[in-house]
Amino acid sequence: MKYGFGVDLGGTTVKIAYFDENGTMLNKWEIPTVTAGGGTQILPDIAASIKGYMAEHEVDPSSIVGIGIGVPGPVDGKGVVNKCINLGWGVFNIADALSDLTGFPVKAGNDANVAALGEYWKGGGQGCENMIFATLGTGVGGGIVIDGHLLHGAHGSGGEIGHLVLNRDETEKCGCGKQGCVEQYCSATGIVRMAYKHLASTEEFSSLRILESITCKDIFDAGKAGDAVALQILDKYYALLGEFLANLCCVVNPEAVVLGGGVSKAGKVLIEGTKPYFLKNVFHAAANVRFELASLGNDAGAYGAFKLALDAFN
Amino acid sequence: MKYGFGVDLGGTTVKIAYFDENGTMLNKWEIPTVTAGGGTQILPDIAASIKGYMAEHEVDPSSIVGIGIGVPGPVDGKGVVNKCINLGWGVFNIADALSDLTGFPVKAGNDANVAALGEYWKGGGQGCENMIFATLGTGVGGGIVIDGHLLHGAHGSGGEIGHLVLNRDETEKCGCGKQGCVEQYCSATGIVRMAYKHLASTEEFSSLRILESITCKDIFDAGKAGDAVALQILDKYYALLGEFLANLCCVVNPEAVVLGGGVSKAGKVLIEGTKPYFLKNVFHAAANVRFELASLGNDAGAYGAFKLALDAFN
Repeated sequence: MKYGFGVDLGGTTVKIAYFDENGTMLNKWEIPTVTAGGGTQILPDIAASIKGYMAEHEVDPSSIVGIGIGVPGPVDGKGVVNKCINLGWGVFNIADALSDLTGFPVKAGNDANVAALGEYWKGGGQGCENMIFATLGTGVGGGIVIDGHLLHGAHGSGGEIGHLVLNRDETEKCGCGKQGCVEQYCSATGIVRMAYKHLASTEEFSSLRILESITCKDIFDAGKAGDAVALQILDKYYALLGEFLANLCCVVNPEAVVLGGGVSKAGKVLIEGTKPYFLKNVFHAAANVRFELASLGNDAGAYGAFKLALDAFN
Repeated sequence: MKYGFGVDLGGTTVKIAYFDENGTMLNKWEIPTVTAGGGTQILPDIAASIKGYMAEHEVDPSSIVGIGIGVPGPVDGKGVVNKCINLGWGVFNIADALSDLTGFPVKAGNDANVAALGEYWKGGGQGCENMIFATLGTGVGGGIVIDGHLLHGAHGSGGEIGHLVLNRDETEKCGCGKQGCVEQYCSATGIVRMAYKHLASTEEFSSLRILESITCKDIFDAGKAGDAVALQILDKYYALLGEFLANLCCVVNPEAVVLGGGVSKAGKVLIEGTKPYFLKNVFHAAANVRFELASLGNDAGAYGAFKLALDAFN
């Protein structure tokens, strides 16, 4: 049996997991991400943590197939990071750097793309070959799997689906500097923004009005309780999300769309609400799509990172 | 040296070309597409034509690496055609069927996807690994190349980029039955439709008003001659095309976008007009894209079909 490590590098913590070649997660732990000093300590810390784990558990180095790592920024197919603002990183080959520090082969990818590969392998996308993963969280991110492989793109920015234009008439700015991005509507932040706008546009009674500040969960909860205004907001949300996912499916024609992130905690109601708008907007030959909720939560990145290494080196 | 055939199967003619393994087109010819009787004669005709060519030119069968074929309908990665309305075809494995008739291995793909592979290999997309090909003709079709391979999609409908929703408020129907598709705006037909609408919305003088019927070429010619109304129409067109291509590039992050079809005959002015709107709408990390005009014309399909076979069997 071969083994390996999957690393999910975030802005505050690094999640590290130890897997067997079948994808069974045998252990997982976290270390802090030390971004001080231009983030130069991050990779040595990860290498030391992996070496420490191996020493403590007497892992035979010859049993290690490799290390995979997901990074919060664009990474091209060769492992070159193209700036991670959060970490203070510029442009360098992270796969080579971590390989030099550990002695093991390393494969790197963008964190959202790598999480998509995790959901494809062991989560909501199991059993398909072509999949779109959309994380509807603070922002909208995602990843695309084609014939079982991640779409990295020419400069590591493939699957940046949160920044398609969804409303060319939008006047407020997206975090990316553009206007009208998917992220401004379909994220957990986006639905709250839509809720405030909708509440301001009507006098109608709503349980949402008594809340000091509205969260994504509040809107879904009010909808489930039958609040008419909440249902109107959700309907607008489903219409935009359905159109957006239909557009992605015209490009990719996947077997499955997997939804993750905070909004997906609403559960099956999210899929049931979105599906009719998806079917209205999708090209008929690409309409046969299975909708799933993400099932790996915060572990998706570690699973996908290890899978990346397994595909590359096993 | 190995050799092979690329076949571009259209609704009225079949283009067949004979290549060496370097992609030099050594010969090309056409035969009619006989669609009568449910299209059952089409593959036997192609097989007979290829065998006839080989007999006439004394081609050694052992030098043939295989046959590639592009088909006007969805084809999945295994060669299963999922209905070609134009040809009267239902669902069957065209690769197996043509292989049985010829004795050579066959690889099949959708015609627009296959043309994309041709432009990637020997046309406007040479030198890149990730490419979007958009044909702006009577309709809008295209194909996507990822890491040097065609995106077929789960059911052979990958790259159906003409049917993304570009205007959710459109009231007229697209040929596909939906409303507001890219094809209704960005095709040669679409720009003419936009021209008539624009002319009806203003009293302003335009040389286009004296024409009995307006063509795509008329609009570009009037624009080049300085006609103010034509320039307004073109500006609207560039804005929509630029936004659409920006959205595609957020998903795929290619090195190059190659434009083909009737509209691309306008030349460099199409790229110059579209690029600023592309840059306005694209996610910054995916903005580094080379725009090219397609250069293989009607031969793109045959080149791409042979490349498909070469990649599969060589």
